[in-house]
Amino acid sequence: MSYPKVSVALALGIAALLASHAGAAEKKTEKELAPRPSVGDVLKGSKPGDWRPLDPENTLYLELPGGRVVIELAPAFAPNHARNIKALAREHYYDGLAIIRSQDNFVVQWGDPHEDDDKVRKVKDAQKTLAAEFTVPLSNDRQFTRMRDVDGFAPQIGHSNGFPVGRDPKAGQTWLTHCYGMVGVARGNESDSGGGTSLYVVTGQAPRQLDRNITVVGRVVAGMPLLSTLPRGPAPMGFYDKPELQVPIMAVKVAADVPEAERAHLEVMRTEGATYQAVLDAQRNRGGPWNKYSPSYLDLCNAQIPVREQKP
Amino acid sequence: MSYPKVSVALALGIAALLASHAGAAEKKTEKELAPRPSVGDVLKGSKPGDWRPLDPENTLYLELPGGRVVIELAPAFAPNHARNIKALAREHYYDGLAIIRSQDNFVVQWGDPHEDDDKVRKVKDAQKTLAAEFTVPLSNDRQFTRMRDVDGFAPQIGHSNGFPVGRDPKAGQTWLTHCYGMVGVARGNESDSGGGTSLYVVTGQAPRQLDRNITVVGRVVAGMPLLSTLPRGPAPMGFYDKPELQVPIMAVKVAADVPEAERAHLEVMRTEGATYQAVLDAQRNRGGPWNKYSPSYLDLCNAQIPVREQKP
Repeated sequence: MSYPKVSVALALGIAALLASHAGAAEKKTEKELAPRPSVGDVLKGSKPGDWRPLDPENTLYLELPGGRVVIELAPAFAPNHARNIKALAREHYYDGLAIIRSQDNFVVQWGDPHEDDDKVRKVKDAQKTLAAEFTVPLSNDRQFTRMRDVDGFAPQIGHSNGFPVGRDPKAGQTWLTHCYGMVGVARGNESDSGGGTSLYVVTGQAPRQLDRNITVVGRVVAGMPLLSTLPRGPAPMGFYDKPELQVPIMAVKVAADVPEAERAHLEVMRTEGATYQAVLDAQRNRGGPWNKYSPSYLDLCNAQIPVREQKP
Repeated sequence: MSYPKVSVALALGIAALLASHAGAAEKKTEKELAPRPSVGDVLKGSKPGDWRPLDPENTLYLELPGGRVVIELAPAFAPNHARNIKALAREHYYDGLAIIRSQDNFVVQWGDPHEDDDKVRKVKDAQKTLAAEFTVPLSNDRQFTRMRDVDGFAPQIGHSNGFPVGRDPKAGQTWLTHCYGMVGVARGNESDSGGGTSLYVVTGQAPRQLDRNITVVGRVVAGMPLLSTLPRGPAPMGFYDKPELQVPIMAVKVAADVPEAERAHLEVMRTEGATYQAVLDAQRNRGGPWNKYSPSYLDLCNAQIPVREQKP
């Protein structure tokens, strides 16, 4: 099964918006920034040990007609929800459900289009709802690597095992942040009214106001365009209010249950290492010739977390 | 000509990610946030004077096979580029060119697919390149309304006449920020190598590192999904490297040149007024029953700038 190519190219793509500039002699009178390594440069110079393979037991495949979306679960940050979502996948709860919503500059959401009528999909052995895991204790967060950049939503920000996180040391809490590609658990008004039967992914400007308000379970690491290009739903909040608009889900599978040869063979950069700090620095401090101004700052949700195909 | 409906619904859509919660009695033991006005509430209570119509002389229509994208130009922030882009539109420079690039979580870009070969579209009376307008003097910025929220990219942030801005008072400079939907001018390595023949729009997490590095000319106020859902280009940086992938541009027109009955009749909330401050506050301080935590903070590029159809 093919799926969209992941993202060393994505790293390069952040670099420039190019128009043709054939021919004219370049004026040297303007102030130039010294060249600096780009993210692409850092990735090219990375070592095998800078990368870790996905854990098949904590990787989901969302199989759509257009291809496969690969989601890495973060059980340290939502242990009960990660377990329950795998249980739902293994009892084939999601198979035949649908993408029910696509809202511009916000989210794509999937679940049971018949949740409120008599065709509702029944949950067998998994849980329909769970106690909220909006935050977890700091001690859940292994290998936290702090970003010193200021953040208005969290006292501390950084990365933990390939995920973007916020932390409040005084409250003793940590949580996954709602950056592009992050996957969360839809719920009703009650905190404990979600459980994983309906999930969403961020497809626009990071809605960080949802941090600490909703359980976040993981991150899309491949196949994002299959979701981000979906037509926007015509109903309020982007819901697909007619069945013909809904995109069918063929299956959601745990990667460990898929024959090894059919799995996505991806690896994620280790965010606790020095090479990842170089990736962040390449985005924080930008050099010439294209850049004329360097921000000396990096927003948590602009920080790339590189993913690539494993070398055979 | 029809174009996608604009965005009182968008304002409502920020509010919640709902899953069905039929039936169960609600536990009242958890700490609840007091209800607060939502953005939708503020919009419903707004007065006619809180809104201003688009200026047809500073509004562009990007006419695509799928419909119309409406772009509001900001001549205060890029006077020469705004003037030149209108001149390019009026000499029909863009007509028959194409969308040449769509990169996930970054930009969609349009221009001349033949810029580097003998089929290049010639510029007649407009300019092919202009001196950069990466920033303009503070005095260009009328009716700046400051946001007190901290920002890592700019000493000051806020809004000016319906546009998101950054400011550096010490340097005496201001600029438009690269929020979702903002339109900028593609350039080569040289600062003065762009002029408006190729433009792009932000379709993902705000790439604020481009602020002060590239001329920003305006904002998409309607039709954004026509761009944000475009398939991602297969070449590096999302370029459509085969002609059959490129989306043809039927025309780019200045709204003033279109018969009044065929124009988009839109109005934008006045960002200098008290009602707009209430819109910001509704996003900064969130209330129950759905929200359980209020961030007391708002990112510049999460701040909605409401647009609606004019009442007849």
